[in-house]
Amino acid sequence: MSTFKNVELTKKANVYFDGNVTSRSFLDENGESKSLGIMMPGSYTFGTNQAELMEILDGEVEVKLKDSDTWNTYTADTSFDVPANSSFDIKVKTITDYCCSYLK
Amino acid sequence: MSTFKNVELTKKANVYFDGNVTSRSFLDENGESKSLGIMMPGSYTFGTNQAELMEILDGEVEVKLKDSDTWNTYTADTSFDVPANSSFDIKVKTITDYCCSYLK
Repeated sequence: MSTFKNVELTKKANVYFDGNVTSRSFLDENGESKSLGIMMPGSYTFGTNQAELMEILDGEVEVKLKDSDTWNTYTADTSFDVPANSSFDIKVKTITDYCCSYLK
Repeated sequence: MSTFKNVELTKKANVYFDGNVTSRSFLDENGESKSLGIMMPGSYTFGTNQAELMEILDGEVEVKLKDSDTWNTYTADTSFDVPANSSFDIKVKTITDYCCSYLK
């Protein structure tokens, strides 16, 4: 699916890590909360409130979930789940385009 | 207006200048083509096909339109027009969040 239809798109950007990670929040046609974002190469740690599904649209990252010792690589059209009230470390190898879905 | 309702949002990002400028394209509820983007500090030149309205949501830029000798400063809640089939030079002073409307 190349577009999301019937979306409510928040105008102002989310800006993290001095602009190295930015995203746009929106509600999809089912009222589910998502964001489309860009990560520049670098290493970051993200905390979660809700559980999240992170889909990589383009680029390459390595991810280590909290309480794990394993780094897993993700590229375009792959995804990973992050539990609620947790965190993950991410090494962004190339400019990465992603879609984050916040799960209930 | 803090959100756009009933939008068709393109999933993949537009990435320019090695990721220093990125944006998301969408069609608003009237079918008008727009994009929400982020510019990192730096100097860039953009060409236009259609005429464009550039709204600065946050940040600070200086802009010089093609065939002009004047640099004008724009900050949050100000905007500038760019003719069709033209170009503009822009000096991004701070991380800048913008909305571009493509005019018919």
